[in-house]
Amino acid sequence: MKCENTSVMLSIKPIAYIHSDFSEKFGIPRQSGLVDSLQAKIIFTKEFRNGDCIRGIEEFSHLWLIWEFSKNQRDKWTPTVRPPRLGGNKRKGVFASRAPFRPNPLGLSCVRLEKAVPNSPEGPILYVSGADLLDGTPIYDIKPYLSFADAHPDALGSFSTKALEHRLNVHCEDALLHLIPKEKRQSLLDCLSLDPRPSYQHDPERIYGMQYAGFDIHFSVNANDLFVTEVIPSHEKQ
Amino acid sequence: MKCENTSVMLSIKPIAYIHSDFSEKFGIPRQSGLVDSLQAKIIFTKEFRNGDCIRGIEEFSHLWLIWEFSKNQRDKWTPTVRPPRLGGNKRKGVFASRAPFRPNPLGLSCVRLEKAVPNSPEGPILYVSGADLLDGTPIYDIKPYLSFADAHPDALGSFSTKALEHRLNVHCEDALLHLIPKEKRQSLLDCLSLDPRPSYQHDPERIYGMQYAGFDIHFSVNANDLFVTEVIPSHEKQ
Repeated sequence: MKCENTSVMLSIKPIAYIHSDFSEKFGIPRQSGLVDSLQAKIIFTKEFRNGDCIRGIEEFSHLWLIWEFSKNQRDKWTPTVRPPRLGGNKRKGVFASRAPFRPNPLGLSCVRLEKAVPNSPEGPILYVSGADLLDGTPIYDIKPYLSFADAHPDALGSFSTKALEHRLNVHCEDALLHLIPKEKRQSLLDCLSLDPRPSYQHDPERIYGMQYAGFDIHFSVNANDLFVTEVIPSHEKQ
Repeated sequence: MKCENTSVMLSIKPIAYIHSDFSEKFGIPRQSGLVDSLQAKIIFTKEFRNGDCIRGIEEFSHLWLIWEFSKNQRDKWTPTVRPPRLGGNKRKGVFASRAPFRPNPLGLSCVRLEKAVPNSPEGPILYVSGADLLDGTPIYDIKPYLSFADAHPDALGSFSTKALEHRLNVHCEDALLHLIPKEKRQSLLDCLSLDPRPSYQHDPERIYGMQYAGFDIHFSVNANDLFVTEVIPSHEKQ
């Protein structure tokens, strides 16, 4: 045992990057799988553009991604964090939470595999759904989901189990919704229903802005109702 | 998107090490949770010896460990691997397998949390069961298991689902079994029932040796029956 040896670092390198509809953190579902319809694709880095890497992967319905909280780097870790689901005012140990600010900035997400294309001009591509990853997030490993080892539906989940209960009613006029490509609409509505606001903000006058699929989505929330107020193509900003 | 930029490495450092009863790879269950009774403890490195790190962790029944295949390093990765469950003669893509030889040597295991001790003389200690980790394995992250996001009992598992079906009948005389501390016996029998042999070896004359909890366990296998032939304290070796 070498418990005292803390100087050994491990260097890992991205094997792929994800392309998703999220260009900023605000509004991303707080865990994978919460919005099933979210589509994303995984494109490998040059070194790993070899269709053999994913041979047989289509026999699995779900995959694990180990990725980097690449936009959440801080110089120092703290032993405790404030999970948003606890209203942002209760502290939990960093290892008792999935918070992005942790000693090693590793994220873990389970996604559904929709399609595997071994040999495209860009090398192998994995089409996945349910990902909670920012566009351009580096991925360090992809592993098949093994239900016999990974599925524990009865696991005790502390405060986290409330994540699924709290859903908002989303109101969006057709004129606004139709500005967004058809295949992106349901995912957006589902993401909004999860209530992207910090749990401690409850000002019905406040207008929030969320980036999604190349659009700025503006909305306000009053109690359990969310109202989309504007949909602006992102490039029209300024 | 910076898909082309493969030069960015991420350095991560161990936050803890696991103490388990496995001093070598042979005989370790091939996934976590297969042998529930296996006990292990997680001891943090000096930098992370702060009870606050695990505050609230006891509200979760299961944890994820992201760890390093520290004894399986190879200079080169290969796009395909031969999963033992396929008899060792069929190749699958490395990202369609949980094989240890992969571009980044990261392991992922779900363990049951038995007890959390925030402030021991060695700092916080997590007592866990079901771990499939070699003694002394470095751990890079610990995350609570969230059933709403992580549990997919109906996930399609390809060849892996057979892992649970194939069990051996283990035969071990009391005289041999009683050489092992009482609390370690069932775990050993369970590990043996999983058939630690490579799938392509079926020689009933062959004696296998497995290290477990400080003992050399010798056994042979004939069809579906495994016979323990010797139990030798490891320190008696040469």
